[in-house]
Amino acid sequence: MVPTTMRALMKPGPVAGAVLRTVDVPRPGPRDVLVRVLAASICGTDLHIYNWDEWAAGRLHPPMIFGHEFCGEIIQCGSEVDNVEVGDYIACETHVICHTCYQCRTGQGHVCENVSIVGVDRPGIFADYAVIPAENAWKTDRRFPAEIATLQEPFGNAVHTALSGPITAKSVLVSGCGPLGLFSIALCRFAGASNVFATELTPMRRELAKKVGVTAVFDPSKDDVVDRVHELNGGAGVDVLLETSGAAAAIETGFKSLKYGGRASLLGLPSKPFMFDFTNQIIFKGALVNGISGRKMFDTWYSTRALLEGGLDLSPIITHRLPLEEFEQAFELLRSGQCGKIVFKIAEPSWAPGGASR
Amino acid sequence: MVPTTMRALMKPGPVAGAVLRTVDVPRPGPRDVLVRVLAASICGTDLHIYNWDEWAAGRLHPPMIFGHEFCGEIIQCGSEVDNVEVGDYIACETHVICHTCYQCRTGQGHVCENVSIVGVDRPGIFADYAVIPAENAWKTDRRFPAEIATLQEPFGNAVHTALSGPITAKSVLVSGCGPLGLFSIALCRFAGASNVFATELTPMRRELAKKVGVTAVFDPSKDDVVDRVHELNGGAGVDVLLETSGAAAAIETGFKSLKYGGRASLLGLPSKPFMFDFTNQIIFKGALVNGISGRKMFDTWYSTRALLEGGLDLSPIITHRLPLEEFEQAFELLRSGQCGKIVFKIAEPSWAPGGASR
Amino acid sequence: MVPTTMRALMKPGPVAGAVLRTVDVPRPGPRDVLVRVLAASICGTDLHIYNWDEWAAGRLHPPMIFGHEFCGEIIQCGSEVDNVEVGDYIACETHVICHTCYQCRTGQGHVCENVSIVGVDRPGIFADYAVIPAENAWKTDRRFPAEIATLQEPFGNAVHTALSGPITAKSVLVSGCGPLGLFSIALCRFAGASNVFATELTPMRRELAKKVGVTAVFDPSKDDVVDRVHELNGGAGVDVLLETSGAAAAIETGFKSLKYGGRASLLGLPSKPFMFDFTNQIIFKGALVNGISGRKMFDTWYSTRALLEGGLDLSPIITHRLPLEEFEQAFELLRSGQCGKIVFKIAEPSWAPGGASR
Amino acid sequence: MVPTTMRALMKPGPVAGAVLRTVDVPRPGPRDVLVRVLAASICGTDLHIYNWDEWAAGRLHPPMIFGHEFCGEIIQCGSEVDNVEVGDYIACETHVICHTCYQCRTGQGHVCENVSIVGVDRPGIFADYAVIPAENAWKTDRRFPAEIATLQEPFGNAVHTALSGPITAKSVLVSGCGPLGLFSIALCRFAGASNVFATELTPMRRELAKKVGVTAVFDPSKDDVVDRVHELNGGAGVDVLLETSGAAAAIETGFKSLKYGGRASLLGLPSKPFMFDFTNQIIFKGALVNGISGRKMFDTWYSTRALLEGGLDLSPIITHRLPLEEFEQAFELLRSGQCGKIVFKIAEPSWAPGGASR
Repeated sequence: MVPTTMRALMKPGPVAGAVLRTVDVPRPGPRDVLVRVLAASICGTDLHIYNWDEWAAGRLHPPMIFGHEFCGEIIQCGSEVDNVEVGDYIACETHVICHTCYQCRTGQGHVCENVSIVGVDRPGIFADYAVIPAENAWKTDRRFPAEIATLQEPFGNAVHTALSGPITAKSVLVSGCGPLGLFSIALCRFAGASNVFATELTPMRRELAKKVGVTAVFDPSKDDVVDRVHELNGGAGVDVLLETSGAAAAIETGFKSLKYGGRASLLGLPSKPFMFDFTNQIIFKGALVNGISGRKMFDTWYSTRALLEGGLDLSPIITHRLPLEEFEQAFELLRSGQCGKIVFKIAEPSWAPGGASR
Repeated sequence: MVPTTMRALMKPGPVAGAVLRTVDVPRPGPRDVLVRVLAASICGTDLHIYNWDEWAAGRLHPPMIFGHEFCGEIIQCGSEVDNVEVGDYIACETHVICHTCYQCRTGQGHVCENVSIVGVDRPGIFADYAVIPAENAWKTDRRFPAEIATLQEPFGNAVHTALSGPITAKSVLVSGCGPLGLFSIALCRFAGASNVFATELTPMRRELAKKVGVTAVFDPSKDDVVDRVHELNGGAGVDVLLETSGAAAAIETGFKSLKYGGRASLLGLPSKPFMFDFTNQIIFKGALVNGISGRKMFDTWYSTRALLEGGLDLSPIITHRLPLEEFEQAFELLRSGQCGKIVFKIAEPSWAPGGASR
Repeated sequence: MVPTTMRALMKPGPVAGAVLRTVDVPRPGPRDVLVRVLAASICGTDLHIYNWDEWAAGRLHPPMIFGHEFCGEIIQCGSEVDNVEVGDYIACETHVICHTCYQCRTGQGHVCENVSIVGVDRPGIFADYAVIPAENAWKTDRRFPAEIATLQEPFGNAVHTALSGPITAKSVLVSGCGPLGLFSIALCRFAGASNVFATELTPMRRELAKKVGVTAVFDPSKDDVVDRVHELNGGAGVDVLLETSGAAAAIETGFKSLKYGGRASLLGLPSKPFMFDFTNQIIFKGALVNGISGRKMFDTWYSTRALLEGGLDLSPIITHRLPLEEFEQAFELLRSGQCGKIVFKIAEPSWAPGGASR
Repeated sequence: MVPTTMRALMKPGPVAGAVLRTVDVPRPGPRDVLVRVLAASICGTDLHIYNWDEWAAGRLHPPMIFGHEFCGEIIQCGSEVDNVEVGDYIACETHVICHTCYQCRTGQGHVCENVSIVGVDRPGIFADYAVIPAENAWKTDRRFPAEIATLQEPFGNAVHTALSGPITAKSVLVSGCGPLGLFSIALCRFAGASNVFATELTPMRRELAKKVGVTAVFDPSKDDVVDRVHELNGGAGVDVLLETSGAAAAIETGFKSLKYGGRASLLGLPSKPFMFDFTNQIIFKGALVNGISGRKMFDTWYSTRALLEGGLDLSPIITHRLPLEEFEQAFELLRSGQCGKIVFKIAEPSWAPGGASR
């Protein structure tokens, strides 16, 4: 039985903050599914929306529910849905794509020119129930707890970034140790990288970096990162830069730490244009730079599944588990940087823990 | 018989300009060859040296002969030379590499960390004779006239840039129609690109672009390049940006004209850092960006040879052929932009035109 | 007005040959389109079906219409079709894919594990009308005559094969000069390959190879192909083998003509397993071998369009244009090998020649 | 002080077996180094030489010392050597390449057309001292014991094979669990592969496979490998086949276990041509197949170093450590397959264990 109303975290209008309201449970269209949300996690994008910064004000149309990282149990399927069924445990690819643009028709849906993003361009999932297109549902093994299942989406960003080139036997600099940086460090370790360096301003996050296996983590406010990287990396720059911070200074430091002929994969979003030395950092260096958006659909999801099933443990990166009601505390924590990943625990699964996979 | 003295175009000291002097013919070391120069061509780098700009003042150690693009006939070989012989007609790879750094030992000598460049870090070739390492000599078929043979080095830059990803059946924007841009246009046409657009401020160079087969060439001072490219390219951005201008505005326009998921290969050297929007132009766009330095050693040279032998005609790009004595006029022309490629005719080959290849 | 009956070339039962019958015009499902066929071309697969060989007998379920290469005009759209509309001029991707297997979900639909092929696993198009899934319709510019538009599918095979690696500035051996080989030669020339060699037993097809620009074509029954290729290719093996014959002897000769570190792209289908020397032809040689099936969906189609729009002319490869009634002559011709591509002219377009594109 | 004579394991003439003789210590040429051998390991190639099979008889010119996998201490350098020095601890790249062929000049020295292999085409290293070209010496950290340092060469074969495409998050089938297969399994595990399956006829080697972390190892004489792989791999074929056995049956089984669109990297050398179904196993499957020869020079060696320094432990794969005098037992063991890697302990290093790295 699907209830008629639910709790939902809303951006009520064009102002900072959010409110928890009781609203109608949404109804799925013919190609959609209705999902009972079990856990949801907070992305940096959600903080932009919460803060109602310039980007958010220019893109969102409140009132609307926000949030996009989640997992849950399908409780209703639209009439034309045939890829999933009621009872399936799923996570969600949050890019809803057009299937008609050049990118979509050539296997590059992750850069669809007409993308609509859950919780940004269409209603989000910080709620008890959510409707998503069935094709965006990603079936997940019940052996994974909800707090891990919800992480597949943001972890997928890190997987897409790191595995967009060779990592095994390579030295890596991860700039930024927020959740995306921490995911990257854990992944590089799991993938047999040689040295995995990182930079991070916040002491608590540097500690988390150590917990997930960083070779050395630097405080760019004190350490000469470029020198230290070369010193610890046998005199050479790193083979790979995985940029997750979006900070101009970190990007510059990252490129300066990169070997001639190295790869720089950029995931973090600078909030505005900045001065950059293309001549020395990209051209003379013969660098390969790739911008990363979303997750390859669905190559990255298969990789993410394989990594989790293979034993990669993301749980040390979750530092806070909160009920949806404590959203103000959650966003305050995220703003402070005194956290790894924050997960909202929304509901319990309908199946017993450790139950057989479906 | 090797004479004892020769003409040489020198940067006499840390000042603008150059002087043509009579100097001793250099003597080859055991792994070098002495070459009788037949033709030499002028690179943008030579203009920086001639002008004695900040970059030149910080790097060169005058007095020295400059110039690096040339071809000639080997007239003497060092005692340990076994890859070429006296009488060989050669062009010259101008990057003298260390063979011991990581890059050199992994097939990426073009980004050698210890590179020494002919005419920049070591004596150049605007002279009657020149000494280069034998391994940098590239044997050339005598069917090619000297003014074409000397172009292999700069044309190789364009080949390296364009062929660092797919070109056939792709739409391309070449930004800048100096010699490197013109080479790129001619190459894209030869390689079966679909649309080949270009941007260029100088009318004369736009005319040259048309001569070598551009689909449409725009004047960025008047045309809305981004709109026009989309309009003529079926509503889509281009698949590939080949950046040869080094101008910040051209780079920005180029990226804005690039399709989501497109490739941007950067060859032109911006003279200083500039403001760039990584978020929208690289990251959200999922762009692949690669910096191009030199020529792959010697993959690019094999490609260059195959293209010329296959019939790609570079001669329309040569607009001026001058004796070395008229160097002032040559540099004035290059500074004005009223030219394509400028070639110094230094000497005649010792063999009859159309003679059999060696 | 759609008529109720039409002509259709049928495989009436499990026997050799075919019959031209009058049958009901098929009706499109909600995601299908009904197409008025303008031209259709004959594939080697159709000859297998016509001959009712072992492969055909094991796969097809007669009675059924066969044929899969065609173009036409959409005259009716299913209720859910939104990517094309009535009046569109289209060609057809003949692989109908499942969208749910790993391959489909990772951008590799051309190797879908559950593929259903038009004219093989489902009704074909040697008829006045045909129904295909709307997503398989490929809009085509009206400037291209029907006999060219229908070639997009088989030409796409050659495009997929040749462009699965670099071609520009590379030397190539095309083994087999049937239509797929001829398409490959024409494409390699258009893409700026250096030398394009070919092998073919039939004199008439060797003449066609010369017509589309081959550097040299060999008769493997008389010429020592391996020696000749090396001799004409500067002493070296070729960079690329494009295998379109499916003949064991041609594959062996092709690999022996391939350079160490070269690429062999295999499109022709050997009729059964054969003896092959992996040690010397693949392993010691460090060869890269890729099997080609279908066309990348829809990357290859975009490339095919770009090539045709860019001026690549396939018309010299069409040697016979016949009405559907002369199917017996057509299959006899194909069996004899005394032909390039054979096209059935089925109907005239509803628009004036040279009319504006839609 | 270099002694004048030494022990050396020789192939005395064109017959099976070997003899241990006292011979003159070789003298290095100007670009060579003289190495005091510390450990050497036995390759399958050495068994072919010992057995004096058809291949060996057709290639070697006895009398000569054989063996090529080793490590040691440089005790003398030729006059022109500048990349290593006396006292360096080194392993050896056994391909001595020409530097002048197309492959060498384009970064593909591992498939040099004029390669000369240590212990095959030139004197080997089963001896107290050995001379090798200085450029083939690979400096090794003294923290690694000699029995590990000598493994870098054969382990490099496995590294080249496995890392010639993505491994992280991929499912893999390793066919054959001799040393190359065991190295591959250990590497795939270290690199974060999901499932790593293997096939092997010998029970003892299947046990070794389990020791290094295989997901499941099959006995192809009893198990239906193709079925079992699909069953344990979620119903799908594997993403990657790493073929190390060279057995025709294993290659066939391996390809049948491979996913559509998968990669097959072939390292094991079939002793002769065999029947293979290209149509179904490569072409329809859209497989990517690459032949692996040697190690990329020196990319693979950098990777090998990074993997060992990162903690990949090869010691479980060494099953026997023998003095050179027990060579007959060693070859008998290898012939029986009742072993992993066999190492000859030749001498002790001149430095204290655990001494600082040089």
